[in-house]
Amino acid sequence: MTVRELVEHKARAAKAASRALALATARAKQEALLQMARVVEERRDALLEANRADLERARGRGHPRAFLDRLTLTESRIEEMAHGLRQVAALPDPVGEVVRMWRRPNGMEVGKVRVPLGVIGFIYESRPNVTADAAGLCLKSGNACVLRGGSEAIESNTHLAAILAKAVEKAGLPPEALQFIEVPDREAVEVLLTLDRYVDLLVPRGGEAFVRHVAERATIPVLKHDKGLCHVYVDESADPAMALEISVNAKVQRPGVCNAMETLLVHQAIAPAFLPPLAGRLREAGVEIRGCPRTRALVPDAAAATEEDWATEYLDLILAIRVVDDLEAALAHIQEHGSGLAEAIVTSSYARARRFLQEVDAACVLVNASTRLVDGQQFGMGAELGISTSKLHARGPVGVEELTTTKFVVLGSGQVRE
Amino acid sequence: MTVRELVEHKARAAKAASRALALATARAKQEALLQMARVVEERRDALLEANRADLERARGRGHPRAFLDRLTLTESRIEEMAHGLRQVAALPDPVGEVVRMWRRPNGMEVGKVRVPLGVIGFIYESRPNVTADAAGLCLKSGNACVLRGGSEAIESNTHLAAILAKAVEKAGLPPEALQFIEVPDREAVEVLLTLDRYVDLLVPRGGEAFVRHVAERATIPVLKHDKGLCHVYVDESADPAMALEISVNAKVQRPGVCNAMETLLVHQAIAPAFLPPLAGRLREAGVEIRGCPRTRALVPDAAAATEEDWATEYLDLILAIRVVDDLEAALAHIQEHGSGLAEAIVTSSYARARRFLQEVDAACVLVNASTRLVDGQQFGMGAELGISTSKLHARGPVGVEELTTTKFVVLGSGQVRE
Repeated sequence: MTVRELVEHKARAAKAASRALALATARAKQEALLQMARVVEERRDALLEANRADLERARGRGHPRAFLDRLTLTESRIEEMAHGLRQVAALPDPVGEVVRMWRRPNGMEVGKVRVPLGVIGFIYESRPNVTADAAGLCLKSGNACVLRGGSEAIESNTHLAAILAKAVEKAGLPPEALQFIEVPDREAVEVLLTLDRYVDLLVPRGGEAFVRHVAERATIPVLKHDKGLCHVYVDESADPAMALEISVNAKVQRPGVCNAMETLLVHQAIAPAFLPPLAGRLREAGVEIRGCPRTRALVPDAAAATEEDWATEYLDLILAIRVVDDLEAALAHIQEHGSGLAEAIVTSSYARARRFLQEVDAACVLVNASTRLVDGQQFGMGAELGISTSKLHARGPVGVEELTTTKFVVLGSGQVRE
Repeated sequence: MTVRELVEHKARAAKAASRALALATARAKQEALLQMARVVEERRDALLEANRADLERARGRGHPRAFLDRLTLTESRIEEMAHGLRQVAALPDPVGEVVRMWRRPNGMEVGKVRVPLGVIGFIYESRPNVTADAAGLCLKSGNACVLRGGSEAIESNTHLAAILAKAVEKAGLPPEALQFIEVPDREAVEVLLTLDRYVDLLVPRGGEAFVRHVAERATIPVLKHDKGLCHVYVDESADPAMALEISVNAKVQRPGVCNAMETLLVHQAIAPAFLPPLAGRLREAGVEIRGCPRTRALVPDAAAATEEDWATEYLDLILAIRVVDDLEAALAHIQEHGSGLAEAIVTSSYARARRFLQEVDAACVLVNASTRLVDGQQFGMGAELGISTSKLHARGPVGVEELTTTKFVVLGSGQVRE
């Protein structure tokens, strides 16, 4: 079988299985998810062994330590995987929800009912736990899936996908609903992008260039998990202690992810009192500061920020800081440079909080909370497949509901068009 | 100015205006819509004059009568336009609706709020009333728009768009929110398809080939208003009189539109009693019947249907009829040949109605009602921009709500990620 034939075969099988899955009861899907959690725990040793093979290969290729860490499975990470699947099992079932229903003057009822999309194609990086999350979210939402994980985790993922599919079968649902592309060839991704006959939605996760490549080449609708250039704006009326904790958390708690802060905007009136202690805390945490002239007047050891800094997603312990005249200037900066993922204000002013919420055009807008809280789990939506910066279909964390569509149902008693 | 410069200029102006429009109050938008209705009535004579110029040109080019009819404005059609705008004015405002809001264990509130998409690009055929509908729907949903109507209606549309924009201005909103591309060059459409910097959503309306062309070439997300190959399935348990009225209505009431029936499926047990009287009624209405062998045994003067007939959207007074063994066979036929727009069953069986509703994968699934009722107006959603056969974002009639997206808002009191 060629790579094309293999990927097509898997996508076709997923499509066929998607029909049965769309009609599966909430109970059957829940049982399958609990079964999946069980086998992940039972097959722990075999999973660790497969993962060791991946790790050895990756070490041989000289990957950096952070990469190896993300690739590593441990007993506790396997526990987390099982726990995640049980959490998804416990979520309310999105399928069949009557979003709204109303009666028309001619007596017919019109309703909007939530239904699965069909087949989800998901392309992601080398963390095996993502495989379990994705399989769980797709199954819960009644969708079949075609998964393509990073090639470095291929042994772990192939093994994991196989035992998860068995668990699905054990629960009486079609195991073909969970397809994993185990060939490492890059061509497999290119083939997947054009299988619009079988795949209803593509979710690509990875670097900016990769996501753009997918969006340009795919003939399937794509939910972009784009870059996150997130701002925190500290208003003149901000509680300084709160602003400090939020700023440090948004930058330091996990700098390598899309919802970490990249640029801090500070109102000129609060800057003199706020920036020096903040700089101290950031320095302790190992953060490099790049500031505008007004910032550098208050934080002398900060490097000079260039125009490029306002447009850069560092994904690292680097922070750009700009002192602004007022809320207007902050809004204008965010409109020009924000990536539309998450933007936060720290303020004690009701009017400015309200204005920020209304005027900032982003998937998530926060008042007095860290941008790091933008996350399906933190929002109470269960695990997420990513955070969409697309405006169409789904915006923000992509959970089970975002993996569904709706259909109209009409209940009549002989109505015709006059 | 080149065509490219002109279209880019209009799209950029729409984007700039979209910011103000997104923040406009429901009352301001309502006032603008009522103003628009008023000027359409006041400027009736000038509109009719512009329309006469279009009609003369179109007659000179030898367009068929049905085309000329669609292009024609009359006093009563102008009244309908104004009435449509007043109806849109009266709809509930979709912007700012809190779709859901909940509190997390850490005390922060997370909410999903409805917001405009930004700029809608709309490409449509030569009916001037569509211009008023589109302008109204976009304004109500807080979006700016770039409209491109069929070139045959260019005088009527240019004039109409200008007076509508003036009405918007009179109501205190930016007239740049309503852009109309008045140059007839085909190139204008090609330019518009790639202006993803300014336009957030494209809605193309027209023939199948044109919509496919747009979907393939556009770098902007597209809501496809695709072909409608709609079926009515008459179950063995159907009330024969109801089945007759629904079948005739679905085929005859307006055969040239996407929600008209193209293929009738009839359960074998009811066919002998049902088909001969139906054939009589259809014959009276001038419908040509193409049947399967079992149909032709009951309706001897029917032509023989070929495989191609099951796959053809006639948009005409032609009907393909197939006698099927049972509901399974009907479902299989619909799955293979349906275009996913609207599918109907006529039945008195609760179980089969329920099964049809659940198993048919289409934007709209109807029980005991004509497919012709699939329409924003008939559904009580106000005017529609089209009927989406896409699964993503919006499926079925596209009204004001479908022209919005959501954003998450987070109301915190200092929450950070642990």
